[in-house]
Amino acid sequence: MPTILSVCITCKRDDADPADDTRPGTHLLRALHDHGASDDVEIREVSCLSACSNGCAVALSEPGKWSYVYGRMTAEDAPDILAGAAAYAVTDNGLVPWRDRPVIFRKQSLARIPPFPTSEQE
Amino acid sequence: MPTILSVCITCKRDDADPADDTRPGTHLLRALHDHGASDDVEIREVSCLSACSNGCAVALSEPGKWSYVYGRMTAEDAPDILAGAAAYAVTDNGLVPWRDRPVIFRKQSLARIPPFPTSEQE
Repeated sequence: MPTILSVCITCKRDDADPADDTRPGTHLLRALHDHGASDDVEIREVSCLSACSNGCAVALSEPGKWSYVYGRMTAEDAPDILAGAAAYAVTDNGLVPWRDRPVIFRKQSLARIPPFPTSEQE
Repeated sequence: MPTILSVCITCKRDDADPADDTRPGTHLLRALHDHGASDDVEIREVSCLSACSNGCAVALSEPGKWSYVYGRMTAEDAPDILAGAAAYAVTDNGLVPWRDRPVIFRKQSLARIPPFPTSEQE
């Protein structure tokens, strides 16, 4: 299974154009598709990541790896998000070395969740 | 596999006693163990959930279910956290009806992450 990059398409931002009916989260999704993810990353839209006060929000997850949620993203961050997702995808456990993380990932992590233990670890 | 209740033991809180060398997250972990989780919930300590500005943080996860991270918890919230974990454990997908969620879970969600697709869904 590839790395899943979940993108909340209903996210709002305080600085969004009030005349624009398209949610900032949807703009971010489109920007990510326009830039294109690496082959080992699959972009998935979700209707809510329960991080509404920190939109736009995205999450990285893959079985056996730590999952991460990042907030306060914009469509302009799409290249950095995709670079961070690609770096995550090639790890064994989801832990990208600090220096290799995009600055937005270093500074705008909302939370992470440990992987489920494998039968070998239990 | 049971529901995993991950508890960050290094979490700080602004209102913590500065003379107390024990981190608020560790106090929360102890309170959860003292109250005791239901049989289908396993409490696991973790060293960081990357939600440092919203400690104390806990996460609920189980294969095939949405994962949730909650913040700004205190040791006094242990009974509500355990009640919320028990309600999560008996769901098929991690989505507890709103009215059945503890108030701290309704108001203090930091993020959630969708489950990995099963082979049937793909």
